[in-house]
Amino acid sequence: MANLLEINGVFEADEDAYDGVKVQINEPMDSNHFVTMLRASISQWRIQGKRGVWIKLPIDHANLVNAAVKEGFWYHHAEPTYLMLVYWIPEIPHTIPANASHRVGIGALVMNDNGEVLVVQEKNGAFKGTGVWKMPTGVVDEGEDICVAAVREVQEETGIKAEFIELLAFRQSHKSFFGKSDLFFVCMLNPLSYKIQKQDSEIKGAQWMDMEEYAAQPFVKKHEMFNKIAEICLAKKKNKYNGFSKELMTSAFSAKKNYLYFNH
Amino acid sequence: MANLLEINGVFEADEDAYDGVKVQINEPMDSNHFVTMLRASISQWRIQGKRGVWIKLPIDHANLVNAAVKEGFWYHHAEPTYLMLVYWIPEIPHTIPANASHRVGIGALVMNDNGEVLVVQEKNGAFKGTGVWKMPTGVVDEGEDICVAAVREVQEETGIKAEFIELLAFRQSHKSFFGKSDLFFVCMLNPLSYKIQKQDSEIKGAQWMDMEEYAAQPFVKKHEMFNKIAEICLAKKKNKYNGFSKELMTSAFSAKKNYLYFNH
Repeated sequence: MANLLEINGVFEADEDAYDGVKVQINEPMDSNHFVTMLRASISQWRIQGKRGVWIKLPIDHANLVNAAVKEGFWYHHAEPTYLMLVYWIPEIPHTIPANASHRVGIGALVMNDNGEVLVVQEKNGAFKGTGVWKMPTGVVDEGEDICVAAVREVQEETGIKAEFIELLAFRQSHKSFFGKSDLFFVCMLNPLSYKIQKQDSEIKGAQWMDMEEYAAQPFVKKHEMFNKIAEICLAKKKNKYNGFSKELMTSAFSAKKNYLYFNH
Repeated sequence: MANLLEINGVFEADEDAYDGVKVQINEPMDSNHFVTMLRASISQWRIQGKRGVWIKLPIDHANLVNAAVKEGFWYHHAEPTYLMLVYWIPEIPHTIPANASHRVGIGALVMNDNGEVLVVQEKNGAFKGTGVWKMPTGVVDEGEDICVAAVREVQEETGIKAEFIELLAFRQSHKSFFGKSDLFFVCMLNPLSYKIQKQDSEIKGAQWMDMEEYAAQPFVKKHEMFNKIAEICLAKKKNKYNGFSKELMTSAFSAKKNYLYFNH
């Protein structure tokens, strides 16, 4: 049976820097034929001294998942459109790297020249019903810079344009979401516009509020973490706090530029 | 057919705070029976106004993956032992939260009273063949605190006991690993022991090195990111740099304590 993936009955595979091979299944396959080819391929890779075997299986080919698992593959990670399966050829314990472990969120302290901060009330979520005015928050997308996410969330929730100034603090928490860990970065932003146009589906209210009034809310005072963050924000307002600012730098192993955040 | 999961032909499900339901398949099922129950369950959940439907499918029941996908489920995430499938009942666009997006790593600057830093050479990985002496680095496990991971990696690679002092800087990069993003935290540690016992399988060499000598290595000087981090470390040695230290605090919505990192 002819198959574009196939060369002499063995899967065509890309090699990685760790003696691994990676196969991407791009066309429909019968599961019996898949198993035959998989066994022949692994035999050959074993002789070649290969170690990890990765199969990227688009969701359209979910008919092959069970066959791969029966051959000893396990799940590495999944995204909406595909499942990544992995197998380890040598007799020694595997050194397959772990899956992504953290979600990343931001909170944005947007302070204007009058010492007021931009605050919102949310319609849903954990703050629903608390009546607390909080800073805009949101999730950092895969591939998105923290400083960019903070600006985006502020604009989405309140219509305010702003620029990233400094990272004030961050919190790490665990088991927050399907057992994953969470990093939450408090960013200070400088507003570039002043007229609020709130997003209606998620945001119940948005306003500029005196920093001191924000910090004095009973909900903020009552919770150790919120209270400390409010203290940091008050110190920042008085120019008595230095966070980390950002600088774009070339990375060592590619031409890509990444942000380094540090105390300038 | 009797099934412990089943109540009146419908899956037993846990409810979440977002009008969602979650089913965990804990015992073997025939895929036809699974589909029949799934359809009956979704009909009932639709009447109840439920929105997201989560199925946690242990890898032992991979025979049901294809059936769930044919019923309109897609992959949310996977771990070695299970696949999480998700479905959205309403006609409006789904609000299913994204999967974990970041891997987190640490680099440990361990400086002794003589102003020497603990450096290693690795047998494999990106630094292989560069000859560069680098700080111990490693991946933060899911559920592990950054400050704990730094101490663990130093001990694993060099046998040196150390305590976390401060977070000096961090870098965010993208598409570093299966399209995921990466956060790398540079931590300063104080050594509590001095005799190096290196880990042999990953580490080619480990030693104490003058901070200035470390920073002067051609590889470090040549790469913008490494050079800047070395500058920060040199400034720290001279007590001319403030990073973020940690403080354990109660979170707002549970009794859990989490670390907040900020400039004390």
